[in-house]
Amino acid sequence: MTTNVKSEVYAQLESVLEAFKEREINRVFFVACGGSSALMYPSKYFLDREAKNITAEVYSSNEFIHRNPSTLGEKSLVILCSHKGKTPETTEAAKFAKNKGALTVSMMFVETAPLADESDFTINYSWVAAGGKEPNPEVMNYAILYRLSMGLLYVKEGNKKYEKLLNSLDNLSTVFDTAEKQYANRAKEYAQAIKNEKTIYTMASGSNYGVAYSFAICILMEMQWINSQAIHAGEFFHGPFEILDKDVPFILLKGLDETRPLEERAEKFLKKYGGKLLILDAMDLDLTGIDEEVKGYLAPIVLNFVLRHHAVAIAEARNHPLETRRYMFKVPY
Amino acid sequence: MTTNVKSEVYAQLESVLEAFKEREINRVFFVACGGSSALMYPSKYFLDREAKNITAEVYSSNEFIHRNPSTLGEKSLVILCSHKGKTPETTEAAKFAKNKGALTVSMMFVETAPLADESDFTINYSWVAAGGKEPNPEVMNYAILYRLSMGLLYVKEGNKKYEKLLNSLDNLSTVFDTAEKQYANRAKEYAQAIKNEKTIYTMASGSNYGVAYSFAICILMEMQWINSQAIHAGEFFHGPFEILDKDVPFILLKGLDETRPLEERAEKFLKKYGGKLLILDAMDLDLTGIDEEVKGYLAPIVLNFVLRHHAVAIAEARNHPLETRRYMFKVPY
Repeated sequence: MTTNVKSEVYAQLESVLEAFKEREINRVFFVACGGSSALMYPSKYFLDREAKNITAEVYSSNEFIHRNPSTLGEKSLVILCSHKGKTPETTEAAKFAKNKGALTVSMMFVETAPLADESDFTINYSWVAAGGKEPNPEVMNYAILYRLSMGLLYVKEGNKKYEKLLNSLDNLSTVFDTAEKQYANRAKEYAQAIKNEKTIYTMASGSNYGVAYSFAICILMEMQWINSQAIHAGEFFHGPFEILDKDVPFILLKGLDETRPLEERAEKFLKKYGGKLLILDAMDLDLTGIDEEVKGYLAPIVLNFVLRHHAVAIAEARNHPLETRRYMFKVPY
Repeated sequence: MTTNVKSEVYAQLESVLEAFKEREINRVFFVACGGSSALMYPSKYFLDREAKNITAEVYSSNEFIHRNPSTLGEKSLVILCSHKGKTPETTEAAKFAKNKGALTVSMMFVETAPLADESDFTINYSWVAAGGKEPNPEVMNYAILYRLSMGLLYVKEGNKKYEKLLNSLDNLSTVFDTAEKQYANRAKEYAQAIKNEKTIYTMASGSNYGVAYSFAICILMEMQWINSQAIHAGEFFHGPFEILDKDVPFILLKGLDETRPLEERAEKFLKKYGGKLLILDAMDLDLTGIDEEVKGYLAPIVLNFVLRHHAVAIAEARNHPLETRRYMFKVPY
């Protein structure tokens, strides 16, 4: 990527942090749909744990509008995201929030879009190829969103995680490269092993749950037409675990945040009663250069990257390209 | 049920409302696991829409403890629920919340239990048979929880929905009786039609989502070993809908709250591209005696009751009793 792209998005971020300084904010609404919504879960986890005077919610765009939260108002920050800035519900949600007096900040890949027109601020994250293949993690959606949510607490409450984040993001590219090499063959082997499965469950907790949700609904269901559900690792033992036997495939994410014991408990059970398991453990990743204090928050980004490689391998093994759709952008809905 | 049982639980509720008056409350945490967690979603929906100065969260018990929300403290109300009061994570969560200075109110079916020992207040909801078959809706978990959450806003913010709720609850028993007759045969026909299915999705939005979640994880997965996922009706169009074809069974709930347009949009799509559909519409129910202003909030209780009849019919048609378990309460986990 060019230095230009990078400096542009950083300048956009700076303007937003300045806006944060200028107004009272007591509530953050993360509003988006599908995969763009899923990427907001880790930021809610961060705010839930660290914000002293700010509460956070994640809503699907249309639910947000119709639920019409009574606490939405002039002290609210609404962060929205739509990759192409054209998701109608999200554009509508920005307009709705602005009418209520909230500060609206929208993230998107493109520079001009309906969502941008309805938002106070726009941030153009990037998906620029490093070596022609992978997004540059420093400016991708997850990193930009953390800069926003951690930047918010830095500005409003003096939370120091923001500085640790900035120091860590520079090293994320190397972490991605190492992870890619580490999992390239394993992803292909996994894809071969599960290519005929009709149902694959995903599971995680805490900051990692959104990644499991995204893989279930966007990769497996949307892009591969494989049945799925993202099961919360704590909820697993209160119903869903009865579905498990040696033939039911599960993907379990083990992150590095405070909820890891929930994922470890699920792992123990999966290993005893399940058979077709993919367990991706952030402990196995080389996270050199990532500050100890933000490792738990950044692990989902790396796990998501590793899962994306599995998605590519699965699509190839099943001869079902990730781009294949029967309804999305093809029929009215 | 005896008048005695009723007056006892109402006396417990009165004590809790008195306690609400005595302290500042700015945040409610609904904390439970599985089905007990699912029943809390409608109360969060109510608080989200109506509370001016109180925010609400729903967390699975172990996630709550490990996430350790920074806003949990002396101004927090933590409402917990465990049917037998013995769910270890929920008992632990009550202890955790109490240590943080929060007011803890626990709902359970039994009178003495570990969860009761760790809570400031206990409310014993009932499941007493009316005619030997069904719970009396006035004192069942859903109704008691609404009395708590609507009672909270009545006491703290003068919200008048509480009075409308009390007037309506008296008539819920008749509503249940009518619904039972209306759906008895249909439930059996549905059960026959889907008895060989391996996967059944559920879908809803707003105050009804928890009912869809409960049916997916507790009835289908836990009690019938059928694959499932509760899909949010707004999220459906951002991934999950690609799984749909004429052979994929869906259960759609259509409620009466403000998010009904989301469910109607999903219905239109399901009817065009799906084939094996069960659409339960609260508009078809006879809700005589339920105040217009709380119909949207009470619809999920009635939809849940109707779904429970479908569960019984499915279990019978599949010759797989609802009580059958391979892991729950049978092996260590």
